[in-house]
Amino acid sequence: MRDLRLRWACEEAGLAYSVRTVPFSDRGQDHLARQPFGQVPFLCDGELEIFESGAGLLHLARKSEKLMPRDSVGEAKTLQWIIAALNSMEMVTVPWWFLEMTGAKENHLGGWLESRLDHLEDILQEREWLAADRFTAADLLMADVLRIPKVRSLGDRPGTESYVTRITERTSFKKAHADQLAHFAAAD
Amino acid sequence: MRDLRLRWACEEAGLAYSVRTVPFSDRGQDHLARQPFGQVPFLCDGELEIFESGAGLLHLARKSEKLMPRDSVGEAKTLQWIIAALNSMEMVTVPWWFLEMTGAKENHLGGWLESRLDHLEDILQEREWLAADRFTAADLLMADVLRIPKVRSLGDRPGTESYVTRITERTSFKKAHADQLAHFAAAD
Repeated sequence: MRDLRLRWACEEAGLAYSVRTVPFSDRGQDHLARQPFGQVPFLCDGELEIFESGAGLLHLARKSEKLMPRDSVGEAKTLQWIIAALNSMEMVTVPWWFLEMTGAKENHLGGWLESRLDHLEDILQEREWLAADRFTAADLLMADVLRIPKVRSLGDRPGTESYVTRITERTSFKKAHADQLAHFAAAD
Repeated sequence: MRDLRLRWACEEAGLAYSVRTVPFSDRGQDHLARQPFGQVPFLCDGELEIFESGAGLLHLARKSEKLMPRDSVGEAKTLQWIIAALNSMEMVTVPWWFLEMTGAKENHLGGWLESRLDHLEDILQEREWLAADRFTAADLLMADVLRIPKVRSLGDRPGTESYVTRITERTSFKKAHADQLAHFAAAD
């Protein structure tokens, strides 16, 4: 669930937040008014309501230098890699995973996904962080896209594996992840 | 080709720009250093180099109020719908189209795409623009995602059809589109 991205970002930035639950099914007009595709999460910040986890993450990143540098090059590179995580990587991982779940005989998105992962592996073998030589919201999002076990188990990509491990070992990720699991357990 | 988004945004904003060509095949290390997935476009603005058309569009939107309002709510809503175009709509249209092109017997992403289009149709039957009650970069991007003939021909969605027609009738779109076609023709 993509609420993890926003919990995690708030933890990294030290922003106070609270999490509310919406029903998994029977999402009615009230929900659709806030999230027109019937999904979660959406973020409330004062008078602002924002759906799309990527948009919520960019909103939080602008509030905290811990998530995104303030210089124009550092900010542009962070933005660039946030969009790459959403529109170059997740645009392939999610539909690929969707086809895996339907149990189709052959997953025709496999070659495309492998190619994207290979390009990213070349980058991650060379550098520790995607932007600005330090942890940013771009790493948070990219690691969240890549950490799906089915994606991680595709082929041998040591740069990517060590990147995902390094980032998901952060205290903020562990806390957000544990909190998310506890939240689901309590909602059952 | 996604360079259209950036040409079109520059036309809307009245920003001066020039377009350079990169080879379609044989994209070597120079290209990968600028665009790690081997794609186009990338944007150069002074010392900044940005890949990902969505990131380039957000960069341009921050330069011009014509593309994105300056008040915090208007800006957040524009951002939200830009990300929705990239990560809720295009994340389904592009892989769906990819499977159509492979000629698979059954396109297992069809139901997902129809559902996303239906949710968006509900919105587009109610309003003329996605954010801030006026044309923004979010409409530019969403119309660019939806204008693909194969997607437009899926089912009868009059709100969506009239939205795409209205937006692609803009002078800036027509100029950017004609320039793009002329550019490809000259490069042949």
